[in-house]
Parts: sequence; C-alpha cells; structure tokens
Amino acid sequence: MTAADRVRALIDAVGEVDEGSRAGAVARWDALAKPPGSLGRVEDVGARLAAMAGEEVPPVPASPGLIVCAADHGVHAQGVTPWPQAITTAMVEVIADGKASCSALAREVGASVVTLDVGCAVEPRPREGLTSARVAAGTADLSVGPAMTADEVVLAVLAGATAAGQMLDDGVDLLVLGDMGLSNTTASAALIAAFTGASAEEVTGAGAGADADTLALKQSIVTGAVRRLPSGAAPLEVLAAVGGLEHAALVGAILVAAGRRVPVLLDGVITDAAALCAAALAPACVGYMIAGHLSTEPGAGVALRHLELDALLDLDLRLGEGTGALLAVPIVQAAARALAETALISELTPG
Amino acid sequence: MTAADRVRALIDAVGEVDEGSRAGAVARWDALAKPPGSLGRVEDVGARLAAMAGEEVPPVPASPGLIVCAADHGVHAQGVTPWPQAITTAMVEVIADGKASCSALAREVGASVVTLDVGCAVEPRPREGLTSARVAAGTADLSVGPAMTADEVVLAVLAGATAAGQMLDDGVDLLVLGDMGLSNTTASAALIAAFTGASAEEVTGAGAGADADTLALKQSIVTGAVRRLPSGAAPLEVLAAVGGLEHAALVGAILVAAGRRVPVLLDGVITDAAALCAAALAPACVGYMIAGHLSTEPGAGVALRHLELDALLDLDLRLGEGTGALLAVPIVQAAARALAETALISELTPG
Repeated sequence: MTAADRVRALIDAVGEVDEGSRAGAVARWDALAKPPGSLGRVEDVGARLAAMAGEEVPPVPASPGLIVCAADHGVHAQGVTPWPQAITTAMVEVIADGKASCSALAREVGASVVTLDVGCAVEPRPREGLTSARVAAGTADLSVGPAMTADEVVLAVLAGATAAGQMLDDGVDLLVLGDMGLSNTTASAALIAAFTGASAEEVTGAGAGADADTLALKQSIVTGAVRRLPSGAAPLEVLAAVGGLEHAALVGAILVAAGRRVPVLLDGVITDAAALCAAALAPACVGYMIAGHLSTEPGAGVALRHLELDALLDLDLRLGEGTGALLAVPIVQAAARALAETALISELTPG
Repeated sequence: MTAADRVRALIDAVGEVDEGSRAGAVARWDALAKPPGSLGRVEDVGARLAAMAGEEVPPVPASPGLIVCAADHGVHAQGVTPWPQAITTAMVEVIADGKASCSALAREVGASVVTLDVGCAVEPRPREGLTSARVAAGTADLSVGPAMTADEVVLAVLAGATAAGQMLDDGVDLLVLGDMGLSNTTASAALIAAFTGASAEEVTGAGAGADADTLALKQSIVTGAVRRLPSGAAPLEVLAAVGGLEHAALVGAILVAAGRRVPVLLDGVITDAAALCAAALAPACVGYMIAGHLSTEPGAGVALRHLELDALLDLDLRLGEGTGALLAVPIVQAAARALAETALISELTPG
C-alpha cells in the first residue's frame, strides 16, 4: 500500500456516530433525578459521547492522552512573530521533559503526553518523552509557494496517525490535541480562510505577540496564500499549500481516533484548523470532536462555527500546547460520569 | 460566649488577602516559558490563590471538599415552584447516599462531600453521609413576614461554620459550596436584590421550572419582601428576613474558610446570594472566593458583578448541589500547578 493509499484507508475508516445512542442519552438525562436540562451543556457532551461510543451510557474516559505535534514554518522568515524559530525546538524539549505549562496541566488531569517532532527546523536533542518522526526541517515559505510537497503532507499525516494510533493501542480513550510551532497561527489562519471562505481579516490574530504592523503583514500573507490556491483544490492540496507539518500530523491523529470511535478534544486555533482539514477529508469525523476551549485567536471562533462546535471553556487562553483542551478533560469525564451514576427520578422515595 | 458573639468572632477572623503575594505571582507568570498572559484567566486564578495563601507560589489544592447545605422555605406555600417540597428531603437522601449528579461530579474531581441538613421540612432519614444540624423545619414564609428569627439565623450560620470547620480540620483545602432546597431561587433573588439594589425583574429567574405566571409571582414576592426590609437593615437582619437556613449555613461556611485563608468555590445563584451576605458582613472574605460558574439564573450574574468576580465556567447549568463549582475544581488546581511547575524562560536553552 502506498502512503497515499494508507491515508485513504484512514479516511475510509471514519464512520458516522450513532444517532440512536445520542437520542437514548438525551432521554436518560431527562429521566435522572434533577430538573430536565439543568446540567446544560454538560448534557450535550454526554450525548455526544454516547453517539461516539454507540452506547446510551458511554464509558467514562479514564485515560486521556495528549499528543503535541510540533514543527516549524518557512513563513517565519517573513517576520510574522517576534520570537526566534529556535524557541520551537527549545519548547519541544521542555514539553518532552515535562516542564511546560501543558505538562503541569496534563499531570493535573491525569493525561499521558506524547511529544511528536514532525519537522522542527533545528532537531531537538533526543530524550525520553520525545517521539521523532521528522518529515522535513520545517515547511517551505507559504508566502512564496506551497509549504509542503504532496509527499511531505502525506507522510506527516501518517506520522500523526501512527503516533496517535500507538497511544490508542496503549489505552488512551480520550485523545487531546496540542501543538508547538513558531509562526503556526499564520498557517492556521490561512487554512481556516481556505476551508471556511472567511477573509484574512476575520481569521488572523496576534498569535504569541504580533504588533499592529506584524498583524497587517500576517493578514496580507494569508490573503495572498489563499488567493494562490487553485480553485477546487482538494483538502490535502490546501493543507500542503498553506498548512504546517504539525497540522498534517494533527489531521492524521484526528482521523485515526475518529476511525476507532475515540473522542478527540480540540485545543486552540491550530488544532481547530487541522480539524477543518480532517472534516473536509472525512465529514463524519466532526462527530468525534469536542471543542475544549475558545482561543482568543479570531480564527478559532470562525473554525468552530464552521464545524458547528461550541467550545466548553472561554478563559482567554492563547498558548497552545493543548493547554485549553487539557482544562476541558475533567468536564468531558464528568459528563459521562453524571450520565452513568446519577439516580433516576423513578428511584426517588419522597417522604 | 453567646451564639451572636461566636458569629462576630467568625467575622473578625477574616483578614485581607496578601497583595504582595498576588503581585509576586503575576510577575512569576510573566517569567514562565510561555508568551506573557497566554494562560489568560487561569493566570488570574493562580494570582488569587497566591494572595489567599500569602505565598507567591501557592500550594496546589489537593483535597477539595463539597458542603451541600440543605433546607426548606416557607415561601414554597405560595406556589413558586411546580415541585413538591418533599423533593428537598428526597434529594438530600440521594446526595448523602452518593447518588446525585453532584455525587458523580465530586467523585470525578476527587472531592469529599458533606451533606448538611439545617432545616428540611421533612427530616431526612438518618444515614452515613448526612450531617444533621437542624435549626427549624424550614423557614417561615418570607412573603408574609421574616423567614427566620434572629436566633435561627445565628444558629444556622454557626451550623454551617461548624460543619465547614470540621471539613477544614479534616484536611479540606478548597471548600466547594453547594445547596439543596425547593424554592430557594426565590429567597436567593430576594437576597440579591436586597444586597445589590437590583430590581426583582433583574434578579428573579425560572429556577427549576417556573412558567411565566409563576415567574411573575416570584417577582412580586421578591419585590414585596425587599420593600418590607427596614432601611439600613444589617446583613444578618436581611438574611433573616428574606433568606434561607441553607443560605445562613453557607455564610458560616464562607466565613470560616476565609478566616483560615482557604479558597472558597462558589456554585450558582444560591451560593452567590450567600456570598453577598458574607461579603456584607466581612468585605475581605471576597478575596477568598472564586466563582466556579455562571448560573443561567439572572441573579447570579448580578451577584457576581457586585462581588467583582468573573465566573470560570458558563455551561448553562442551573442545577445547584455544587455541580458548577465542582466542574471548576480542576481549573483551580491546574492554575496552581501551572504556576508552580512550568519552567522559567531563563531555564530555556535554545538551539
């Protein structure tokens, strides 16, 4: 099987969620010992988990796992961020060593962490906790031509799918997505504009600290990159043209989890952009997604609206690394547990 | 010492939070290996915890404990809810038995639970998990006169303080507030109107299922009850006139936790109303509060704005029992952990 065939198999493996189980969960919520609807959006999460699992009372996800997909971007050369590119590699090492913000949050919510280098410009030093699946030393500059070749994008998708698939094999039952990569809000904005039709102004934000001039530069780069896309470009062509290696790896992770009916927790604008691409490849995979939080990056809201997902948290986060998604893990677990463990009204024995 | 003296001692024990530690935490967030401010409101929570603890790097709360204060309300006789009053007792038994929605959420976040009966109309049957500190068999009807006597309100405050104090003695380091009591959204609306000056229309909601006529009735009851308050009424007089025994117990719980510098997580509109009363008695205790979630009851937003607190979650919950506060526990813990365990920028070793 060629690499492209393997990606096709990942896409074909994604089946629809089970609407009957969703309806069963909704009915069960209404039969529990509480006012109907009083758990609000927690009830929606429980019903989504039921639809994913194909069970009216879905299991409580017990083993969340974070995959942080990391890579660099050729567009960094245009000056879209004040931070040097070496920060990507340094932060990958910090994450792999368990010393990043996402590391602390993962410990708090009991999530395992896999740090996946699919293309940092400077190769991180080997260490326990770092999975190396380098496709290239970063992408080409999307402002002057396609960021990736067709081969690169397929290999990066497969790298993410392989790493995530291994996590699922190891027992992860809630896949939490995260990212690391300087300049990746620019690539994300381009992906979101391309997949939703929104303008560069609507989807491009300040990222990790762009000033007004830099923001204007980012917007003009996004506008130009989207304009150069051939009309009717296939999702993987769009991804290759304006995306990042970490976006491609995230697409692979989403596809493999959805194909195995495992819930996927989206983080911020980078994972939202990848989710749009995965949804374009396999629309049914949206049914396995839960939006962990709403990033302050404007593209995040645009992407989630396009996916018809409501974020669970809105805490003004804009860090990435999976931090926002990790904070939502307990809510997802609590939804399943409340659905399973709350007494039925019929069990009450009033006075 | 008289009961009133003991309440006075609780109030006097509440000291200001430490602004120096807060400033230290803010500076530490900016020195961590992430873009400044990128953890958004999680950083605010960490800084608040620092101010409470009097330490720039506050400890991670390891032992959350939920206290569910339960009682009935004489105003139930006016038909302010479609649910029979016996539901209070039935739900108290369900909570004490660990079978309520709050029980499931407490297990998920590792919180212990104390169920405190300070005045159910029908006494719950004794069982492990139920603490009985009954002051009365419910309040009098606040729509025709004061809900409680001066003695009753003081005894209920002390009952909550004693139960919460025992929890802190047992190692609880994050006090999570919850409630159970049919008709208590009506009393809460009256408390919130009285303490904030807002109108009945602004603070009164549908509770656990009031229709339009019932909502109008609730509003007219709230308007009348607040109008009957003597001008310049002291906080405990207001509480006695229009509050509930569970509100009074929650006030006691807040005071004792604040007095020991332990963070207090507010739940929905009932605990928000109690928080207003505690703040009126001891303004410094607001510094020890964290608003867990924003209830859909309109009074909740009014109360939190008055307290200058932003809710962490907004998930359309309106259940009570501490459910919204419990969902916020991991965010509070994560804030402290990220502040303590994220590497400093100065520790990075780029390329």
